[in-house]
Amino acid sequence: MELTGKKFVLLVETQFNDHEFWYPYFRLKEAGAQVVVVSGKAGQSYEGKYGTPAKSEKAPADIKVADFAGIIVPGGYAPDHMRRDQNTVSLVRAFDQQGKIVAAICHAGWVLVSAGILKGRTVTSFFAIKEDLINAGAKWQDHEVVIDKNMITSRTPDDLPAFMRAIIEAGKA
Amino acid sequence: MELTGKKFVLLVETQFNDHEFWYPYFRLKEAGAQVVVVSGKAGQSYEGKYGTPAKSEKAPADIKVADFAGIIVPGGYAPDHMRRDQNTVSLVRAFDQQGKIVAAICHAGWVLVSAGILKGRTVTSFFAIKEDLINAGAKWQDHEVVIDKNMITSRTPDDLPAFMRAIIEAGKA
Repeated sequence: MELTGKKFVLLVETQFNDHEFWYPYFRLKEAGAQVVVVSGKAGQSYEGKYGTPAKSEKAPADIKVADFAGIIVPGGYAPDHMRRDQNTVSLVRAFDQQGKIVAAICHAGWVLVSAGILKGRTVTSFFAIKEDLINAGAKWQDHEVVIDKNMITSRTPDDLPAFMRAIIEAGKA
Repeated sequence: MELTGKKFVLLVETQFNDHEFWYPYFRLKEAGAQVVVVSGKAGQSYEGKYGTPAKSEKAPADIKVADFAGIIVPGGYAPDHMRRDQNTVSLVRAFDQQGKIVAAICHAGWVLVSAGILKGRTVTSFFAIKEDLINAGAKWQDHEVVIDKNMITSRTPDDLPAFMRAIIEAGKA
């Protein structure tokens, strides 16, 4: 399996987009990777926008970034909650600073804005938050997936196949 | 992509297990396959057990089995509804008779029982319906995925990674 031995953080918060959380969750496991679900508070239960339940296993302080291949930020309205937690925001920034995969889909770009890691980066997102990303210094493109070095971004749940193809490919490196 | 040009039927009905419908849906697309969502009545909307919405595109009569690589039957309580529709049951039987992939997870084994295709076959399922499968003539094993020629079965959503690995592998053949 192409990601055997690799570890990924998958962020969660209330009102996550169910598809954008669960598709990466199962897909990384199918590829042999370990998935650690993280939110501001370890052991907390959350409900997706459609009602699927998910529970965090760890808090940001429990994560040693060097041990991980990347972090994945799902969309929905969860990113609006994730960005309120400074430890979560700092964790995303640390992944970027260490050149690890930082993958964000849909509204997840908001977390990248708060992390202050978008200056000069080429990205995409759900179209409604396009201006927020541009105002944070990003170049915005309307593609199913945009890859800028370690940063991988997509627009909507329909882009999940391309999003995960890009993450798997980057994770193999 | 390993399944480019291949087509799969994904069955849907009310109270489908959200993970067991959506993970195969996105995964097959990621592999380049075309996914056709089928229920007894084309164009019908359904809600998963957790509330994600899904819509069928075609009815069984619209499917030319020879054009497809396989059929995937998700679990939840949807299989109890699928088996009430003789056209759906006949479609599953036709896939098996033509040696196409027949993949069933969790409670989906009920549809295989109604299709009368389990005699002498080695399968797994959610443990609660184990006796229904054995009474239909199957040999039952407690493994994350059981492959018997064209028939691929798994037990629960936790088995989805192994289930899809097996389906992708079979689909490449």
